[in-house]
Amino acid sequence: MVNRRTFLKKAAVTIGLAALASHSLKAQPSMKPLSNILIHHVYFWLKNPEDKEVREQFEKALKKLVTIDEIRNYHIGVPASTEEREVVDHSYSYSLMVIFENKRAQDIYQKHPTHLEFVEQNENLWAKVKVYDSADISN
Amino acid sequence: MVNRRTFLKKAAVTIGLAALASHSLKAQPSMKPLSNILIHHVYFWLKNPEDKEVREQFEKALKKLVTIDEIRNYHIGVPASTEEREVVDHSYSYSLMVIFENKRAQDIYQKHPTHLEFVEQNENLWAKVKVYDSADISN
Repeated sequence: MVNRRTFLKKAAVTIGLAALASHSLKAQPSMKPLSNILIHHVYFWLKNPEDKEVREQFEKALKKLVTIDEIRNYHIGVPASTEEREVVDHSYSYSLMVIFENKRAQDIYQKHPTHLEFVEQNENLWAKVKVYDSADISN
Repeated sequence: MVNRRTFLKKAAVTIGLAALASHSLKAQPSMKPLSNILIHHVYFWLKNPEDKEVREQFEKALKKLVTIDEIRNYHIGVPASTEEREVVDHSYSYSLMVIFENKRAQDIYQKHPTHLEFVEQNENLWAKVKVYDSADISN
């Protein structure tokens, strides 16, 4: 009986964990607010944005850059085909949005050899870079 | 014995689900690339960024704005205390990053009564707005 009781206890714990886990999973898509993060959003204006070879090199470089461990999430983008409005800037060539857990992770990223290599090997390609770093509103 | 066998079967299924669920949860943080999305990133420069009442009104308005159904994820931010560098713009007052599933969702958002109300009731507060819309690199 002891064994069975132990099994039942373990099963109960498992059921509890399963319920908890499935709740968290279901909650995921509706967890709209992103918080406790630092968003590092970089916009690049290339000197020759129409040059296919330049674009290939730059995209390859961006994909290597985002392998840095400290990155939580990232998005490599290009201007979306949204409506042309005065406030919307579609003039940049590439967008790189990186999400960090905190400022410390961003500091490590900035000094990471892969990041330094990215800048060194590609800075000749861009005419302008613009960066916006955003922390949570409550911070 | 049938009952116990049934219980054991159910327990096995539960254990399986729990393992699966916990695997998915663990896998979540390593799902670094965000794709099949449209990032709508807005930066606001308020006329009176130091005015506490203005900030309260604006933050309340932003929190109402992000209740729009079409939004997949959002982040309401302020400039992070990252290093002052020439390329980093810390001069804005608020950042609003909104993630949509696609351009269609963004189009609905733009015309949504809650969005129109947000602009109408708060545009007198800002001196400048800058918007960048980014689609996936492969699009």
